[in-house]
Amino acid sequence: MEKELESEFLNKKRRHKKHEAWCSDTERYNLEQLDIIAYRVGNPINCAAIDEKMLAPIKYSGRDIPKGFFSSIKIDVHNELTYLTHIMEETDIVIGLGQSVHRMNKRGTVIKSFCSDDSKHTPEKASLYGAHNFFICDGIENTGVFIDFPGEITYDVGFNHRDKFEITLSGTDFDIYCFKGDSLKQISENFLKIIGKSYIPPKWAFGYQQSRWSYKSEEEIKEIGRKFRINKIPCDAIYLDIDYMERYKDFTVCNEKYPDFKKLVSSMKVEGFRLIPIIDAGVKIEENYDVYEEGVKKGYFCTNEKGEPFVAAVWPGLVHFPDFLNPEARKWFGLKYKILTDMGIDGFWNDMNEPAIFYTKEGLEEFYTEVEKAKHLELDINSYFNLMEKAEGLANNFQDYKRFYHNFEGEMVRHDKVHNLYGYNMTKSAAEGLIEIEPNKRFLLFSRASTIGMHRFGGIWTGDNSSWWEHIQMIIRMLPSINMCGFLYSGCDTGGFSNDASAEMIIRWTQFSIFTPLLRNHSVMGSRSQEPFSYDETTTETMRNVIELRYALIPYLYSEYMKAALNNKLIFSNLIFEYQGARERDIDNQILCGDSLMLAPIYKNNSRGRMVYLPEDMALWKVKDYRENELELMKKGDHYVNIRLDETPIFIKINKLLIVGNAAEAVEKINNSKLKILGFVKDFASYSYYDDDGITKDYLNGYYNTIEVTVEKTGEEVFVSIENYNNEEVKEIEFFIMDDTGNYFYGQTAGKDIKKYQCKKVYNYER
Amino acid sequence: MEKELESEFLNKKRRHKKHEAWCSDTERYNLEQLDIIAYRVGNPINCAAIDEKMLAPIKYSGRDIPKGFFSSIKIDVHNELTYLTHIMEETDIVIGLGQSVHRMNKRGTVIKSFCSDDSKHTPEKASLYGAHNFFICDGIENTGVFIDFPGEITYDVGFNHRDKFEITLSGTDFDIYCFKGDSLKQISENFLKIIGKSYIPPKWAFGYQQSRWSYKSEEEIKEIGRKFRINKIPCDAIYLDIDYMERYKDFTVCNEKYPDFKKLVSSMKVEGFRLIPIIDAGVKIEENYDVYEEGVKKGYFCTNEKGEPFVAAVWPGLVHFPDFLNPEARKWFGLKYKILTDMGIDGFWNDMNEPAIFYTKEGLEEFYTEVEKAKHLELDINSYFNLMEKAEGLANNFQDYKRFYHNFEGEMVRHDKVHNLYGYNMTKSAAEGLIEIEPNKRFLLFSRASTIGMHRFGGIWTGDNSSWWEHIQMIIRMLPSINMCGFLYSGCDTGGFSNDASAEMIIRWTQFSIFTPLLRNHSVMGSRSQEPFSYDETTTETMRNVIELRYALIPYLYSEYMKAALNNKLIFSNLIFEYQGARERDIDNQILCGDSLMLAPIYKNNSRGRMVYLPEDMALWKVKDYRENELELMKKGDHYVNIRLDETPIFIKINKLLIVGNAAEAVEKINNSKLKILGFVKDFASYSYYDDDGITKDYLNGYYNTIEVTVEKTGEEVFVSIENYNNEEVKEIEFFIMDDTGNYFYGQTAGKDIKKYQCKKVYNYER
Repeated sequence: MEKELESEFLNKKRRHKKHEAWCSDTERYNLEQLDIIAYRVGNPINCAAIDEKMLAPIKYSGRDIPKGFFSSIKIDVHNELTYLTHIMEETDIVIGLGQSVHRMNKRGTVIKSFCSDDSKHTPEKASLYGAHNFFICDGIENTGVFIDFPGEITYDVGFNHRDKFEITLSGTDFDIYCFKGDSLKQISENFLKIIGKSYIPPKWAFGYQQSRWSYKSEEEIKEIGRKFRINKIPCDAIYLDIDYMERYKDFTVCNEKYPDFKKLVSSMKVEGFRLIPIIDAGVKIEENYDVYEEGVKKGYFCTNEKGEPFVAAVWPGLVHFPDFLNPEARKWFGLKYKILTDMGIDGFWNDMNEPAIFYTKEGLEEFYTEVEKAKHLELDINSYFNLMEKAEGLANNFQDYKRFYHNFEGEMVRHDKVHNLYGYNMTKSAAEGLIEIEPNKRFLLFSRASTIGMHRFGGIWTGDNSSWWEHIQMIIRMLPSINMCGFLYSGCDTGGFSNDASAEMIIRWTQFSIFTPLLRNHSVMGSRSQEPFSYDETTTETMRNVIELRYALIPYLYSEYMKAALNNKLIFSNLIFEYQGARERDIDNQILCGDSLMLAPIYKNNSRGRMVYLPEDMALWKVKDYRENELELMKKGDHYVNIRLDETPIFIKINKLLIVGNAAEAVEKINNSKLKILGFVKDFASYSYYDDDGITKDYLNGYYNTIEVTVEKTGEEVFVSIENYNNEEVKEIEFFIMDDTGNYFYGQTAGKDIKKYQCKKVYNYER
Repeated sequence: MEKELESEFLNKKRRHKKHEAWCSDTERYNLEQLDIIAYRVGNPINCAAIDEKMLAPIKYSGRDIPKGFFSSIKIDVHNELTYLTHIMEETDIVIGLGQSVHRMNKRGTVIKSFCSDDSKHTPEKASLYGAHNFFICDGIENTGVFIDFPGEITYDVGFNHRDKFEITLSGTDFDIYCFKGDSLKQISENFLKIIGKSYIPPKWAFGYQQSRWSYKSEEEIKEIGRKFRINKIPCDAIYLDIDYMERYKDFTVCNEKYPDFKKLVSSMKVEGFRLIPIIDAGVKIEENYDVYEEGVKKGYFCTNEKGEPFVAAVWPGLVHFPDFLNPEARKWFGLKYKILTDMGIDGFWNDMNEPAIFYTKEGLEEFYTEVEKAKHLELDINSYFNLMEKAEGLANNFQDYKRFYHNFEGEMVRHDKVHNLYGYNMTKSAAEGLIEIEPNKRFLLFSRASTIGMHRFGGIWTGDNSSWWEHIQMIIRMLPSINMCGFLYSGCDTGGFSNDASAEMIIRWTQFSIFTPLLRNHSVMGSRSQEPFSYDETTTETMRNVIELRYALIPYLYSEYMKAALNNKLIFSNLIFEYQGARERDIDNQILCGDSLMLAPIYKNNSRGRMVYLPEDMALWKVKDYRENELELMKKGDHYVNIRLDETPIFIKINKLLIVGNAAEAVEKINNSKLKILGFVKDFASYSYYDDDGITKDYLNGYYNTIEVTVEKTGEEVFVSIENYNNEEVKEIEFFIMDDTGNYFYGQTAGKDIKKYQCKKVYNYER
């Protein structure tokens, strides 16, 4: 079946040269061209954040960085610390820094760049799973700064002193890139250029994906699949969390729970479901477990000070950590994925790769000693809290990161100094392995820990969030910032990982997540079931409509994704990237999605509407069912918009078009022979609809197709034209165009090349 | 000095009869009169929630409550559980239930009524410190429900089933009161009538109060005081957290840190500062500690199953819990406060009275056993998390609440069955003690744990919140709900208890908290200093202005407090209590404060404005310095309002007046001989300005004064009239009146009786 689908898709592709830039992977930028100044301080290791192909070599600038953006630079070689200070103007805002719990503007916060496994994303948390060292300070001047450094960095963005942006690096060897530019957009795009092109997933990875820790058996997996199909809710992937393995051993499958895994994978694929197994960083120490034994034998694991494989405990109990910084080890581990791809697996999520540590033997011994001491005391306030802190401090203890070493280009490097590279290189390991396993196939691959550079090899999900309304708001705030740091394929655990989600929460959350490339519902063991059909009938119906809308949006979302990935653009950005008003400098509960859309989701319990600020006139498509086509004219300014629980609001920008396809039970079963275009056109709008086979990398060689649509309004007349470059699927395009006075125009075309087709004015929509 | 101030105030008072109702403490309501139906099921104990003076006796209704509000009532005598179910209409909203992390409308949430010491107020928390069993379901009909029951109650407000409100009581003996009424306001006020009049603090308790865990010595206390005075920031109280005691023993003062405590108290009072010590529930087990020894001897402590005093550990190490449910023990403990009042102390905060438990010996033994077992294992996922759970579960473990007993009317009652009464009765103990110590003096008294009924004896603060922006929003949401449950004297830890507050956070938080009766800045040990002068100079200046504004608002805030307390009214309420539009059913980030004001605070980092919904035309007083008098006309509808960091926005409702006095370094040093009235008058407005001596209970006997002000607008003319009932302080009242077209009128009067004084039209304010 998979082969059939593949060839069906492959048949569609034809060589075509129009948009060469999209497909070129050979650009070289140089620093001056892009208005970038780079400094190298000391002798930094190569973190591979910057794509080597993309950048002319930078020059060594010694320990004296010429001041500019930074008013003060202090290097404390003795303590291995560097202090950078920038004085902010009153009105400056600081955006970026990737994953964080904070608002768009990071002023008044402290952010620590240190990949952290911390599942409580409360507002004071300085670190999440990713370490993303790019930010833009936007004020009278705009400056982008990327700090290429693999250890801990602390950003005090005017927290301790309102006007001081103080950055502390836990080392003295690093590169700094400063980006000048007229706009946030330009600076961001220049940054994306030098860090290299984003990972591109298969198209089916734009489908809805269902996860849980854990669906525990073949029968449960099948049952979940059946429920999606019975309830007619589209779904493309079902996840296998840690329990699919045999005693949590990577690249094993528990035979008891999955007596014929390969057959299961294949039969689920026939139904349209890919199974996506988790891979953890830690390799279980167990005799006769080949991965463990090989790793030890070949010296591929991180070592302790004495050079013995380092021991920590995670899900499997005691484990060794593969030394992903060692290219040989990376290659060895990456090829292990073949064990699962041979069973038909098309995608993976790499987890626990900060790396998370539950405890180390050393930490546990210290804890036991404390308990022993406590037994002889009457615990008072000090001894009690001390004991409790020891218990809490067992996991992810910073001290443990000083207890192991990497073999980095032949040298022993202590882990804490290169901590942020670990998750990146685990995912690079997988990506390189998968290339070797099947060079032309796109695999789904994403990771929990990350740093800039990893975006070329896989996506990310934002880790263990909670079923909190505040965490819907958090992902809305975080997405543009993640995009700025290169990560296009991203999304959160929709519905929230920890705690229980109500029906209303799952609906509202999904209404936002359908716009994120990775749309995955995931939840913790013991929590309330939060699959779209796990509530009442009304909720199931609403969820079906919302998820169908996602599938209908794939032509737009996939187009936007591919264009962004191939051209180093953002998909999600804050309003301030497009509109330079004062209001836009504070708005982060509305974001731009691709070229045509603004999103203003509901993220509060019990709300049946919200205030929306329109930076310009827009058309509101309030979607209950994607088959409806009513647009509402919304004027620039503030509006209270009523939004029922079953409605997803989509704002189409002025002179922009939204291409809408059709739902199906899985992406590869979509029939998009008929498309529609909803547009809000004052005078002229155009859209490039990109498509390709979705599963190979042939787009790099020009194997893709586009449809170029333009809509022109002259006087009271609306004309459309179409140039079809090799898209053979589309047989019909309907047009629903509203103009800036609320007039409505309709047209129906064959989807083939057409010049100046006139739409019919159907009715005056403004009521 | 205190005596001098007191007599100065006492001299001012004169008997006066005009508003007798305010002063009457003898109303009797009966159920039918107030449209209340009461049911008694089983044989409930008297929780003293309902004020006995206030209520005709209710009748026993047996186990069969007639259905009405509840569509189903199931009593499971065997398992000691009662299930009540109400079916909600789609548009019903449920408000009330006192302290909770949720929005105004509680639909889609689960709330557990069980006083809990849990310092992480994350969005999934079902219980906070108070247990407040009153709610109103507002829909086609309005019904208020009060469940008078001292054990755990779970409210599933449409969480598990969208339309089902399911209430589970952990017992089968209880009273239920159902309130019918046309409006939320009427129902709330009827409820306040039957639970009896609120606690009234001294007037100085409306001053700014500064706390920290802990100012640790006489010198530090003095230094804090000095800094307030040097920086000219008003302050009336400095708090003593647990470290003032000798080894955390209640009613002791550490001699080393405070060599002459009495003298310190007195000298600080001369400077305008009251010292407010904490009192914890647990009494340290220590030989020769009289409170401990007396308690044991007299059998005043809670006991274990065997009748021996129950041992738990809190701050002092091992403690016994006074049995506050035993009237003799309550009296005994209450009189201990005299030890501190004899040293000049005028106020107390009762803490740890859920009661909080760090561990019990039994719990600790179980933990040690688990550790012992773990030592012999290689900890895997199960055994590791089991061990971590045991450590976390040591504190406030529900099982521990089953390990001790009260002597309640001669019977041994297991604690968990009456858990919610503990904090209440600790505070009742203090209140009754203080009455006996000095019957006519008002003491400041508030508590962490509470249940309905306690509001007659003291106030509450909302416990250990965090320096999270979300927690500013939380207190805005929570205050009206706390008020509905009887608690007028309340407030939160301004600036947040846990974690670190930025300068901007402390400013924005204080800009809201100046409207709460209890205005206290408090923070945890180890956190960043968050006193108003602990940041930069600009922040100090802003904080001075904000806190001065608070003092200038005391005439209004104190008037509103006293009128609410004496007449069973709300101070804070949601917009929906006054305005019945659809929008108001969702708005909880704006609240009404007293009769004249609406508040729309900024609670987001970096914001310099916000959207405000005006349910009717209002006047905006954007206050940088309370001496400024500019009003801005704001029309009904949605507005984006610019609010600089140094501005506090105050909205004056139409046909309402705001009386404004003057700042001073402490409340008793305020000179309000000159007042001003800011008004927004379309045709007619009036205001009763209430005042009294602020320190005695003589108001009960008519010793208070009022000034009745009316403002009338006829055509283009504005007339004011004043009736002064025995207020001898006020010598001048200035009027700044804006009409509904933005015209501005000014007048200056002597503050004495005056009829139809005409204000002068000064300029057209609308620009």
